[in-house]
Amino acid sequence: MIRRRLRFRTPQAVLRSLRLATQYGPLTSEAMAIEKALGQVLAQDITSTLDIPHFVRPWVDGYATKARWTRRASSMGPVTLRLAGRLFPEDYPKSSELGDREAFYVTCGAPVPKGADCVIKAEDARSVGSEIRVLKEAKVGEGLSRPGEDVRRGSLVLKRGQVLRAQDLGLIVALGKREVTVFRKPKLAILSVGDELVDPDHFGPDRIVNNYAYVISAATSESGGTPVLLGIAPDDPDSIAAKLSEGVQLADAVATIGGCSVGAKDFVPDAIARLGEVIAHGVKIRPGHVAGVGVVRGKPVFMLPGHISSCTMAFYVFVVPTLARLAGIGPSKILPSARAELSVAIDKAATHTFLRLRLKERRGRLLAEPIHGGTNILSSLSRANGFVLVPPGTSMRKGQAINVTLFGKLEHASFDYSKSSRDC
Amino acid sequence: MIRRRLRFRTPQAVLRSLRLATQYGPLTSEAMAIEKALGQVLAQDITSTLDIPHFVRPWVDGYATKARWTRRASSMGPVTLRLAGRLFPEDYPKSSELGDREAFYVTCGAPVPKGADCVIKAEDARSVGSEIRVLKEAKVGEGLSRPGEDVRRGSLVLKRGQVLRAQDLGLIVALGKREVTVFRKPKLAILSVGDELVDPDHFGPDRIVNNYAYVISAATSESGGTPVLLGIAPDDPDSIAAKLSEGVQLADAVATIGGCSVGAKDFVPDAIARLGEVIAHGVKIRPGHVAGVGVVRGKPVFMLPGHISSCTMAFYVFVVPTLARLAGIGPSKILPSARAELSVAIDKAATHTFLRLRLKERRGRLLAEPIHGGTNILSSLSRANGFVLVPPGTSMRKGQAINVTLFGKLEHASFDYSKSSRDC
Repeated sequence: MIRRRLRFRTPQAVLRSLRLATQYGPLTSEAMAIEKALGQVLAQDITSTLDIPHFVRPWVDGYATKARWTRRASSMGPVTLRLAGRLFPEDYPKSSELGDREAFYVTCGAPVPKGADCVIKAEDARSVGSEIRVLKEAKVGEGLSRPGEDVRRGSLVLKRGQVLRAQDLGLIVALGKREVTVFRKPKLAILSVGDELVDPDHFGPDRIVNNYAYVISAATSESGGTPVLLGIAPDDPDSIAAKLSEGVQLADAVATIGGCSVGAKDFVPDAIARLGEVIAHGVKIRPGHVAGVGVVRGKPVFMLPGHISSCTMAFYVFVVPTLARLAGIGPSKILPSARAELSVAIDKAATHTFLRLRLKERRGRLLAEPIHGGTNILSSLSRANGFVLVPPGTSMRKGQAINVTLFGKLEHASFDYSKSSRDC
Repeated sequence: MIRRRLRFRTPQAVLRSLRLATQYGPLTSEAMAIEKALGQVLAQDITSTLDIPHFVRPWVDGYATKARWTRRASSMGPVTLRLAGRLFPEDYPKSSELGDREAFYVTCGAPVPKGADCVIKAEDARSVGSEIRVLKEAKVGEGLSRPGEDVRRGSLVLKRGQVLRAQDLGLIVALGKREVTVFRKPKLAILSVGDELVDPDHFGPDRIVNNYAYVISAATSESGGTPVLLGIAPDDPDSIAAKLSEGVQLADAVATIGGCSVGAKDFVPDAIARLGEVIAHGVKIRPGHVAGVGVVRGKPVFMLPGHISSCTMAFYVFVVPTLARLAGIGPSKILPSARAELSVAIDKAATHTFLRLRLKERRGRLLAEPIHGGTNILSSLSRANGFVLVPPGTSMRKGQAINVTLFGKLEHASFDYSKSSRDC
């Protein structure tokens, strides 16, 4: 019944072949309003065209004056200055001038009167009628922002390939921009394959519901991509090929789920070969050794096996790095990771092992506990938070520190963080 | 010019007073389609109403037979069985029966013929015409999933308060659900206060642009909330009060930015007092000691100071725990954290310190480098990734391991992770 011989290759070799065959790189870029740019990948370097702040301005509320007039001021021996007026930010471009031993009350961002070289904080003086009593000696420049102190004109503020965070957006707005050029998010079309599958709307206890598509779809969103659900194709090469064609038209890459093993009805490789090329089928990895990749019209097609653990392996090992590359960022930046200690020793294996791990905090330390067995057990994945890829011939000792790649940006909420360890 | 005396209290005491005054808890819940539920907070326990799988089924492609007929089978001495037919998942509910020394070819999820107690993997047998040669002894139960092996009927599958991840959604679909009950996301209205501020559309090099609202807005999204931008109110108690009224109508909480210090034009506390109550004004923390909280129509109002570092402090120390509570999850679950080693010693201080930190990886270890100074320097925030709150009188030594709370779920993409350390 075995019609196909798999040629097993390392995960790295499979990814390399796929890159060579598709030559994929970052997608086109597009302008996006700042309000929508959170989490997008910057497609341009951003250089400041101005100094921030643009002019000398107080960054505290207080009294603008000359520092030398406050010499030896103290709470025991205050220095008296004449209060000449008040200046607020909206007074721009009004100009005032400091007379001898005078001070102006100024608020943050107000114009600074000519001749003033410091702003004494409000709490370091007392106002008494038309005078103030300065309680503390001031230094030249105190309380004043210099132009360019925050951002200097001509400086590189944000780099191409950076994921935009809240504070980055604030900086972009400060530069006078309302839009930013970002890489288009990669779209991944997801096709489930199998005569046995039904849509959740046709759920029944004797049916097998197409739920893995929802896992891969949500995991795609978590990995910086936009999922496109293609539905279910029966075990028939024509139907699969038709859906694959649709997929490469709608999306930047396609992932099939199921139908790629060596059984009598595993027609996904045939369908890919009909439209394009199977680049690799068979991976030296457990679980998921029947996974593979192909190319259709220059776009990557991933064959994810039908068992959930294998499917997950192929998604994280092959699809995620590809999404990262299409998105314009490094593969290590697409998913968070956590440093943890292995809870048990791991024996060496002949192939790569995709080891699912559950994270737990014990006395302020993060432990990673392997989840074994049940390649077809979805609930075991729900208990896990991430994985490591253990190379062949590598054993790991109990307590060894490892970097666990988390399954998504939401995983942190699932750890058993004890409250105490969150205080520093 | 100081019109108001602040009463400085610890951050914990301020939060406690706010909780007592507002008695806020999780918001109402709502039904949500699975496709939209990624990252939502579950408002119900989910208990399985069925066994998954629902019936005995093969989880490999191969040959269903009786294990005892394969006794002593090996590649050197294969055992021959008659191939009686093929069964696929769509053959349900067709029933077949195993005759003496017979086997059926079955694929994953297919019905199991009566009398079969194992499924031999396809690669452990060879098919030759109407016979198969079994190359390996099989065990009873091998290759078969038992009903309830994945999820047992009546078992608690997901808990109220859990943040829904990709794999959780797959599990919910497997239970036959298309919808799930989640807590409504809290809305935070954001009001910037200051005569000097202009909207980004009116940007000019001599103007101060209202960019902090964009930082707080995006940080709200990253913290599980929905931001509502109220725009800018001038330094005038009536205008501020009008906008605050609008805010508490539109949202579950309001954050004001600026106008809460002790300057001549700091009218936010007055505006709050007019509509409700100032619960606390003044916090024993640096930076941001002029922050405060109030209550208007039972809803929390946060006074975030106008300097970016102070504003950020008040957001993370007061707003984020409140958003977490409104969202129905623990405060430690709303933002990710990273364990890192302090790059320098930190001297003890008289008040709490909101210490901004930049994370860097050095030889597989994560270092946390304090970002000092520049409370009004936005670019310093862009260099930082998270914070620790250092209690008063606490010094920390160089190399000490600390839990850094990250500013958002996107921060991990900003660390300097070296490639090598991502391999295990």
